Amino acid sequence: MSAATRINRFALRGPARIEINEVAPRDGLQIEPVVVPTDAKVALLDALSDCGFARIEATSFTSARAIPALADAEAVMHRIRRAAGVRYTVLVPNLRGLERALSCGPDEVNLVMSASETHNRANLRMTRAQSQAQLLAMIEAARAANVAINVSLSTVFGCPFEGDVDPDAVMALARIFAGAGANGITLCDTTGMAYPTQVRALCEIFQNALPDTALTIHLHNTRGMGLANALAAWEAGVTRFDAAAGGLGGCPYAPGASGNVSTEELVHMFASMGVDTGVDLQRLLAVVAGLGDVVQREVSSQLLRAGPRLATHQPPAWLAEHFAGQA
Amino acid sequence: MSAATRINRFALRGPARIEINEVAPRDGLQIEPVVVPTDAKVALLDALSDCGFARIEATSFTSARAIPALADAEAVMHRIRRAAGVRYTVLVPNLRGLERALSCGPDEVNLVMSASETHNRANLRMTRAQSQAQLLAMIEAARAANVAINVSLSTVFGCPFEGDVDPDAVMALARIFAGAGANGITLCDTTGMAYPTQVRALCEIFQNALPDTALTIHLHNTRGMGLANALAAWEAGVTRFDAAAGGLGGCPYAPGASGNVSTEELVHMFASMGVDTGVDLQRLLAVVAGLGDVVQREVSSQLLRAGPRLATHQPPAWLAEHFAGQA
Repeated sequence: MSAATRINRFALRGPARIEINEVAPRDGLQIEPVVVPTDAKVALLDALSDCGFARIEATSFTSARAIPALADAEAVMHRIRRAAGVRYTVLVPNLRGLERALSCGPDEVNLVMSASETHNRANLRMTRAQSQAQLLAMIEAARAANVAINVSLSTVFGCPFEGDVDPDAVMALARIFAGAGANGITLCDTTGMAYPTQVRALCEIFQNALPDTALTIHLHNTRGMGLANALAAWEAGVTRFDAAAGGLGGCPYAPGASGNVSTEELVHMFASMGVDTGVDLQRLLAVVAGLGDVVQREVSSQLLRAGPRLATHQPPAWLAEHFAGQA
Repeated sequence: MSAATRINRFALRGPARIEINEVAPRDGLQIEPVVVPTDAKVALLDALSDCGFARIEATSFTSARAIPALADAEAVMHRIRRAAGVRYTVLVPNLRGLERALSCGPDEVNLVMSASETHNRANLRMTRAQSQAQLLAMIEAARAANVAINVSLSTVFGCPFEGDVDPDAVMALARIFAGAGANGITLCDTTGMAYPTQVRALCEIFQNALPDTALTIHLHNTRGMGLANALAAWEAGVTRFDAAAGGLGGCPYAPGASGNVSTEELVHMFASMGVDTGVDLQRLLAVVAGLGDVVQREVSSQLLRAGPRLATHQPPAWLAEHFAGQA
């Protein structure tokens, strides 16, 4: 390999190091048809804790009526092993949930609302104005409790009901929450409508406008663009990515078809490019291999099936004999 | 939407127009377990001819013994409707195949060998030196017949037996065939081992070294990076992409899991970014919807299931009543 080739080949246009927030335990398990027993959740989280993630979204303090699958949030948080270097974040929908969450000592609370009115109403049963007021009250309470705060903004790259979403409306919300004291904001492609130039542009706009607010990107693979959008975000300088082991989560109506971007594929792509993700791919793949047992259905992972790119195969047995004596 | 936002949002870092070579009729059908009847092949090709592709790889003039599924190559070529603006290319493995192909008047012949020795031996049962000599003889014969020549180089981004492949070895082959008179060269990620920085680098190296040779990129989605790699190639200035409707083709051992990059997802991504692909996505999706009948198995297309990104849904029926009287 010539020197010129070697240099060009590994030329990076984005950060040399990224970090990953593993969201399968919350975003994945909350829409699975089976309720995963607390023991299995704790075992999953403990296994993920050994993989090298910067953050893990462990559970959600939603009402048990709204999401029965995560009714054991306190038990999960009290029983998991807190690995050094991992920040455990939890989803919190309201002040009651915040109170419950704070009793468990999370490293971060993650609040959520949609950038589009119709999706906010459909998903949260509130107007955006109501959600915004509630989030501001939660930010105030969380700050008083001295816990880190992230706000996830849904549908920022498109709304399944309204179509395109105005980036200025997204940024208006981001400015409000950053100004109120949120430490980080996640831009969520809730239903896989994002495309690469749009992702790059919105990430650049965000980082120019709010350089002191940690930006995370949350992508889905609904239309096959999950990793392409991750690449675009990374080229815009983004260093924090949500992802779900096995591509869990996403749409309850088509399991396996349109979930979150798969953590193992995200890690594999960035590792191939020489970007440090902190994640041990082999350990992660072992966890992914066990996910089917956890959720009691087949979990389709292309990377698990194919193996990492340099996991080479033996040539066919006939080859040596066929070419015996040839150069 | 502010002016700055609008400008940034659609900023392109690659060509405003690309063209697509639809390879499902050859690369897809040759590994399907069923032999598709000639009538169905002709109907598929005629439907694809109305979609706006620049090129369609229609069939392969391989021996009927090697690939029984495409034994009807002459019949297919004689019976399809040749749409204006579409170049019909055919795979040709040897001089005998070339003779057969030329009798059918293709717009282009596509020759193939691997960049890695072991894959060439396993796939073509020849050493690279033997393949190279054969391709040079075919190029000479095709030039004499005044037909356009493309050479597809397999495993240039990695070999499933050998691992990484030296870009200099790839470029040495490319220079030989371009020098001998090939009009175009396709760099093939045969088993989905390519990653974005590698794709960008090799495309840049190629275009700098051989600016007058048309470069096509052939990608697989084996490890989820198909569209990310297409994005990287496009950012390097590449304008010609192979793709297969429904993601057909690829690996005979895991159908649906690791085929070619899906044409509909490739078209959808570039169209979302405002890049002109020439392809009518709705017409293409109608063809994809019928592929299951053609190959007699379920064809999984995420985009077909999800719909294009702006195919919005009706909000849930309870929404209007729930928010009656609210702003």
